[in-house]
Amino acid sequence: VSDLALGPGREFDAIRAMLARWGSAATGIGGDAAELVVPGGQRLLVSTDTSVEGVHFRRDWLSPSEIGYRATAAALSDLAAVAATPLALLLSITVPEAWRPVIPDVADGVAEAARAARAHIVGGDVVRGDALSLTVTVLGVATHPWSRGAASPGGRVYVTGALGGPSVALRAWAEGGSPDAGARARFAHPEPRLLESRWLAHHGVVAAIDISDGLIADARHVAAASRVRLTLDLSRVPHVDGIDPLAAAASGEEYELLVVTRPEVELDTSAFTRAFGLPLTEIGIVTADDASGRVDVTLAGARVDPPGGYDHFSS
Amino acid sequence: VSDLALGPGREFDAIRAMLARWGSAATGIGGDAAELVVPGGQRLLVSTDTSVEGVHFRRDWLSPSEIGYRATAAALSDLAAVAATPLALLLSITVPEAWRPVIPDVADGVAEAARAARAHIVGGDVVRGDALSLTVTVLGVATHPWSRGAASPGGRVYVTGALGGPSVALRAWAEGGSPDAGARARFAHPEPRLLESRWLAHHGVVAAIDISDGLIADARHVAAASRVRLTLDLSRVPHVDGIDPLAAAASGEEYELLVVTRPEVELDTSAFTRAFGLPLTEIGIVTADDASGRVDVTLAGARVDPPGGYDHFSS
Repeated sequence: VSDLALGPGREFDAIRAMLARWGSAATGIGGDAAELVVPGGQRLLVSTDTSVEGVHFRRDWLSPSEIGYRATAAALSDLAAVAATPLALLLSITVPEAWRPVIPDVADGVAEAARAARAHIVGGDVVRGDALSLTVTVLGVATHPWSRGAASPGGRVYVTGALGGPSVALRAWAEGGSPDAGARARFAHPEPRLLESRWLAHHGVVAAIDISDGLIADARHVAAASRVRLTLDLSRVPHVDGIDPLAAAASGEEYELLVVTRPEVELDTSAFTRAFGLPLTEIGIVTADDASGRVDVTLAGARVDPPGGYDHFSS
Repeated sequence: VSDLALGPGREFDAIRAMLARWGSAATGIGGDAAELVVPGGQRLLVSTDTSVEGVHFRRDWLSPSEIGYRATAAALSDLAAVAATPLALLLSITVPEAWRPVIPDVADGVAEAARAARAHIVGGDVVRGDALSLTVTVLGVATHPWSRGAASPGGRVYVTGALGGPSVALRAWAEGGSPDAGARARFAHPEPRLLESRWLAHHGVVAAIDISDGLIADARHVAAASRVRLTLDLSRVPHVDGIDPLAAAASGEEYELLVVTRPEVELDTSAFTRAFGLPLTEIGIVTADDASGRVDVTLAGARVDPPGGYDHFSS
């Protein structure tokens, strides 16, 4: 049962501990299913995202609160990728014995991300298991949600933010060191680009994806879904220090947005940066219809043949 | 990212294998978020439920297809508990290396339960991990969803089906044996009482819960949420062979419904049984308002003091 009812038992103790931390961030918890009202004329957008200890994060990299925050922010990023406004989220958490004492701190991180996105925590599940795992399901609404399949020739391609931070952080940890604060923050505290996506939708963006597999791999998803060919100039892609452009374009779990405008529409990148304090950079164009969906990549004027996508740190 | 896009990589291979099995059971998969339309005037009901290997099932008890079916049916049961009509579901699955070859069979079981409930599979996530885990999020709609808090004095209490089967099956496995086919089926192939719940809503039921913690424990959830006192007569509760009434009333993961009518309303149990081939049995009454929410239990005319709730088989 997915309820968060308050009977006896250790599972309910964990729920009580989380509810105590969540306060007003949680609403309507306690039934078999959460009840929501979707305003008339709005589409409902739903996505679910799982973060597993040892696969998506390690305990010595992140604080319990950061683990909760990051799992929730990653799920909310999927709503940014379709220009939806968050409504609610559900958390299913698998809790090993050793993690029980810090579950309230994990819950704090979940609430931090939920509050920042104005999403209410409306339900979930708590189960026992051998590895900490968080599955966050997010629900949002939009009148005209984006799809990956709406890019067409003449559309301009932009990316938010500066890439490569998560990759730099993971490399430092893999080498037994500690990442610098900037790179670590990009891994530990990604910000779903929710307000940014609504600005972009209002200014002519029609197709998007959030960068989770790496810029080039995700651009390929857009090209395939839209049946077009994209050309990207990696020289233009902003990246953090300590990484080369090709590696930055393969860095995953960035949770920045790759967006494509309607043909001929140019975005006012300065206005975007003034509004959000974040770079918005034109990095390419949709060159042609192409049923095979292809991404051509250039770097300093020369064609490069980048490697495949990113499949989490341990693969 | 929760998408089921089709890039390279082993994670995508698992997704492709599942999509191949799902066929028309899956729709609209491939974006960052699934898009749904909630009909005007309907409430949206959402619930999420996690099943973990070693906690909710063991590999030698169930076939891969039964594991997928059972996890999905358990989640759908939460929609039955609020009298909602299923709309869609999302599956997040954590896949250990050893399970990869049978993931298509797990997917078959998910699709079987989804098809039976007329719920489309609209999205999900696939990640690696050390224990098989399925988190199923279900979405449904209802004009007047039930709540646990709507019982009031004079309401009659009914239960669907016959209880105890899952407990008998678990006991047989715990003792190193094999359960008989009937008890095994009650554990391996629970049927969410979806059509039944809509019949019951139409005939005067106002409050309900699906029996996952055990009849008495779940009755307590209803009593607490409704701030009433319930009296249950365990002599009346139908149960399978090989279990006593008290143990049947503590048997969890039944996925039958405990329902309460509006005051003075009596259900036509014969008509229910003719419609669904399933017992519907009056087992008690709401005796009084009671802020503490209490369940009095009698057996063969004598008051009994039953133990607490059920907290999965391994506790």
